[in-house]
Amino acid sequence: MTKSTLIEQLNWRYATKKMDPAKSVPQEKLDIILEAIRMAPTSSGTQPFEIIVVTNPDVLAKIQTAAGDQAQITEGSHLLVFAAWDTYTADRIDEVTDLNVAARGDLPMLNAYYDNLKNNYVPRDAEVNYAHAARQAYIALGVALVAAAEQEVDSTPMEGFDPAAVDDILGLKARGLRSVVLLSLGYRDESGDWLLPMKKVRKPAETIVSHVD
Amino acid sequence: MTKSTLIEQLNWRYATKKMDPAKSVPQEKLDIILEAIRMAPTSSGTQPFEIIVVTNPDVLAKIQTAAGDQAQITEGSHLLVFAAWDTYTADRIDEVTDLNVAARGDLPMLNAYYDNLKNNYVPRDAEVNYAHAARQAYIALGVALVAAAEQEVDSTPMEGFDPAAVDDILGLKARGLRSVVLLSLGYRDESGDWLLPMKKVRKPAETIVSHVD
Repeated sequence: MTKSTLIEQLNWRYATKKMDPAKSVPQEKLDIILEAIRMAPTSSGTQPFEIIVVTNPDVLAKIQTAAGDQAQITEGSHLLVFAAWDTYTADRIDEVTDLNVAARGDLPMLNAYYDNLKNNYVPRDAEVNYAHAARQAYIALGVALVAAAEQEVDSTPMEGFDPAAVDDILGLKARGLRSVVLLSLGYRDESGDWLLPMKKVRKPAETIVSHVD
Repeated sequence: MTKSTLIEQLNWRYATKKMDPAKSVPQEKLDIILEAIRMAPTSSGTQPFEIIVVTNPDVLAKIQTAAGDQAQITEGSHLLVFAAWDTYTADRIDEVTDLNVAARGDLPMLNAYYDNLKNNYVPRDAEVNYAHAARQAYIALGVALVAAAEQEVDSTPMEGFDPAAVDDILGLKARGLRSVVLLSLGYRDESGDWLLPMKKVRKPAETIVSHVD
């Protein structure tokens, strides 16, 4: 097999269970992780989510309560909240169109493409649109997990939280956002994390990959 | 900003619109992309999806018809179909438990964790479970897009297809799977791809990232 740094990074990372609260992710590493999220591809380039970076201890404590008291939320130095658009609106798609026109020129094909997207997305049920936006946030989550590993920053993705409570704590509803997934960033507690010495578990390739030749 | 190879890779990649049908992704690069997918993290380590690697020209042609005739499906050398579990079942979760026990030992905590997961997931509506499984497939999609870029393989993620038709073509329903997203792999047609010379468009960081300090 050709060398792959990515495979090494995926083997290095793990869903850190105990982080060292004395260690903080440096700004330049956080910036790279956020830049990777920004550059992650999304459907039609809509980037239909926002990232809220929480470091405020009181707010982290409240989120922790809404997330089954998971320790990483306050032991990590930064919590990224992935919050997807609650629906697609004409205004939101127009903003994407404007960005495209500004970068690529006022091409008829661009306008036609996004007009078509508006006609398809805007009348759709908000739940369908939110589900679609949430999936795009998960692409960015996958990229963020790689970015953290590249920067040798530990991370824990967390779905086990009450989204309505987190939306409330962060005032997301008024911004047309819904919390989708949390990503705690920090540094593993080498001696205190029960998961660290355990073997990584993955299914054998032949059970998840099949071929139609 | 500290050097990040990942950011370079994310800037190199783009949703390739025209691939060169004369060029094929070598087996060792395909293997690395599939290995990255296998190592991608998923909720509770369930890996609730499969990858179908399609290279058969007749099958690709049928999928292309079900996907708005997108050229990459037949011009790329490999099509990865991400197919999520249609629901969580006791058997599927038991298999994950068994893998964990085999790797980490028959720990009471492991069994209790997955028993709890079964109690939560199995009675849930199949659509809720499928939606959750599909999100996990999108984490793997994000990782796969990075893996392809690392290997300098071009790729095009595609959502614009009729999932029921693709499920039918590949016989996925009988396997308890539902097609979620397609990823075409191949090599860009340098002179024929209209998108290649265009500037990449992304939102400014300040419009998608906010801070609660």
